[in-house]
Amino acid sequence: MVKEVVKVGMLGLGTVGSGVYKILQSNASLIARKTGARIEVVKVLVRDTSKNRGLDIPEGILTDNPDDVLKDESVDIVVEVMGGIGKARDYALAALQQGKSLVTANKDMMAVYGEELFMAASENRCDLMFEASVAGGIPIIKVLKQSLAANRIEQVMGIVNGTTNYMLTRMTLDGSEFKDVLAEAQARGYAEADPTNDIEGFDAARKIAILASIVFNTRISLDKVYVEGITRISAEDIKYACELGYVVKLLGIAKDTSNGIEVRVHPVLLPETHPLAAVNDVFNAVFVKGDAVGETMFYGRGAGELPTASAVTADIMDAARNILHRVQGIVGCTCFEERPLKPMGDVRTRNYLRLRVVDKPGVLAQIALIFGENQVSLATVFQKETVEGKAELVLVTHEVAEKNLKQALQGIEQLPVVEEVCNAIRVEDQS
Amino acid sequence: MVKEVVKVGMLGLGTVGSGVYKILQSNASLIARKTGARIEVVKVLVRDTSKNRGLDIPEGILTDNPDDVLKDESVDIVVEVMGGIGKARDYALAALQQGKSLVTANKDMMAVYGEELFMAASENRCDLMFEASVAGGIPIIKVLKQSLAANRIEQVMGIVNGTTNYMLTRMTLDGSEFKDVLAEAQARGYAEADPTNDIEGFDAARKIAILASIVFNTRISLDKVYVEGITRISAEDIKYACELGYVVKLLGIAKDTSNGIEVRVHPVLLPETHPLAAVNDVFNAVFVKGDAVGETMFYGRGAGELPTASAVTADIMDAARNILHRVQGIVGCTCFEERPLKPMGDVRTRNYLRLRVVDKPGVLAQIALIFGENQVSLATVFQKETVEGKAELVLVTHEVAEKNLKQALQGIEQLPVVEEVCNAIRVEDQS
Repeated sequence: MVKEVVKVGMLGLGTVGSGVYKILQSNASLIARKTGARIEVVKVLVRDTSKNRGLDIPEGILTDNPDDVLKDESVDIVVEVMGGIGKARDYALAALQQGKSLVTANKDMMAVYGEELFMAASENRCDLMFEASVAGGIPIIKVLKQSLAANRIEQVMGIVNGTTNYMLTRMTLDGSEFKDVLAEAQARGYAEADPTNDIEGFDAARKIAILASIVFNTRISLDKVYVEGITRISAEDIKYACELGYVVKLLGIAKDTSNGIEVRVHPVLLPETHPLAAVNDVFNAVFVKGDAVGETMFYGRGAGELPTASAVTADIMDAARNILHRVQGIVGCTCFEERPLKPMGDVRTRNYLRLRVVDKPGVLAQIALIFGENQVSLATVFQKETVEGKAELVLVTHEVAEKNLKQALQGIEQLPVVEEVCNAIRVEDQS
Repeated sequence: MVKEVVKVGMLGLGTVGSGVYKILQSNASLIARKTGARIEVVKVLVRDTSKNRGLDIPEGILTDNPDDVLKDESVDIVVEVMGGIGKARDYALAALQQGKSLVTANKDMMAVYGEELFMAASENRCDLMFEASVAGGIPIIKVLKQSLAANRIEQVMGIVNGTTNYMLTRMTLDGSEFKDVLAEAQARGYAEADPTNDIEGFDAARKIAILASIVFNTRISLDKVYVEGITRISAEDIKYACELGYVVKLLGIAKDTSNGIEVRVHPVLLPETHPLAAVNDVFNAVFVKGDAVGETMFYGRGAGELPTASAVTADIMDAARNILHRVQGIVGCTCFEERPLKPMGDVRTRNYLRLRVVDKPGVLAQIALIFGENQVSLATVFQKETVEGKAELVLVTHEVAEKNLKQALQGIEQLPVVEEVCNAIRVEDQS
């Protein structure tokens, strides 16, 4: 090996960027020994070069001109930790076109421009690594691309959004309502002022799109992912779920079935014995079932300065090693198939339903009739709390196609004795 | 790439070997697409070539002559799945000396001959991969060597022996005694006729020696690992532990402390909220704490035909890719340090103690005096079940050095009022 230093240019020095800078400094000799060369940050693009960041950065490293990073011929690896999908994508593409390997933590960019970026990486024989884009510090991208590569993956189910997992955990343990927990999460800095991305499931959707693309070797664009957030989950639903032996989690789900693949994000009732059921607070975990390995799970912190930077830095080390050995792109894009996606209406699950009805004889018969007409059969029915002539019915269906359930619920909503279909949550039993 | 086929020679076709053969057959096209070449098994060393194995193996593949594998120039990768440490080591070494990459599932061989094999791999510029040697199908070796490589690893704690985890789970859930559960495990095929290796902790010791060598970049030979099995654990201990909020697990532990590294295997009381506490039955899990990533856990099946074969096959694919790109050994041995190992006497933990004593006034005072003289301070004391003038004392100490506790217990055993020190189990609180 001739090269003794691998040079890194960073785009962004926010939370994750600072973390990367700190790790590269504090663990420098360890990293050099393992990689085979010293890794040196030579340029960092920031908005404001005069801002004090509490980091020990030599003169001349910070710049507000992207070309100082992208067109610096000495830069071997560009690390994109600025976020967003506009400039980030332009810079990432420019870096790859200059023959620089790219390491990114940017799930939004990967979910939207993954294909374009991988084509550029392939054409220019560069690495494109994105371990940190899903589940922060948890090794999952490389695990799926390499460690479990001999498997046909049957199922991936992930708690990949820390904000919503924190909120559901608090609702479960304290019995609090959604809006109170959201306010608390915002006060603690776990949820943003505009929490839409997290609570509506959009963040989780980007992550499951990335994971599904890898495990099914098929490019899954974001618009193909069915998404439903947790805003309709009430403390009552969680309490009833618990009585039935379930916990409520927001999952990203990718499943291989005989009639197509499923990629979806929504709240689920998960048996309390499932390994994911014990994953609480802001922790993330990805459950993977392969035809050979069986059930596995990968657990850790899905966000935060140093956890996310741990994943970014590991990618930098792998990319550096590949540069030293001149094998950039040795593990490239794996989307070599185009597998058909199942329409959401054909997805089959069991379902938890909560209905508010008039409390008088014959109501259940009317409801059951409509379920029957739509091929929905019931596994469990119980009536809860009668207040002022109104009763709450909690039902769990056997497995049924989404479209049949929807049609049944539409019919049931029309019944004069039914005041409201309060909630319908899919049940993911072990399968 | 010129090469279109990477040729594999296998040593052994037992449980794991058959699994590897099956996966390479059933997932052949997937594996070829991901690797960049077809992977073909050209020779398999077996004891009896005429035995019917229920596998679809072409004529001429099976052989009882090791040279047919080791000296076949067309063989690129040798897969050692025969087990044992005598011939396995000789053949593995011969393969590496012939310039063939080696994939092995053999923890015994790696724990004993790891250094010698890595030297041969390095001299001959070959890969030596051993993902399957620890925790079966769970990706942990590559995770530690690459995905978490930017971290200083502070702690590894693993449930790495399925047999003992099954036994402890049954003892916990059913309240059964050790010997009954052992008989049941043997009947189910989870424990061998001679269960010594599992129940005395020797199997776990090999695995933690391998993991510790990786995370501390220091060759930890098997004889350096402190080992204690689960044969003294009683249903009573488990019951008391549960009352105190703990579960009992056999752990392999590797810890980095300010005055040296610790590598040990023994039963522990683990807080019931610890992620490892929920890992039951034959499942394995490895908990890793790094300075950047924080707490992570990797969960799955630690043994079995296909889970173990999943890890072996992933290694074959990585080795094949490295051969195709001519970068064998790109990630080699990482034991580039020689960190001092802490003597077991200096290891500090909290401890659960169960004593049988004479039930009369002043007994606790005598015991407490000896603890005090040896710098052992007590966090919890409670007296259980008095039968025929004898009482059981359950105590939990504050953190104390092993040697001080030992000395105290020796003194206490001499007391006429103490009938027996029934058990002493270390407590691993979150730290």
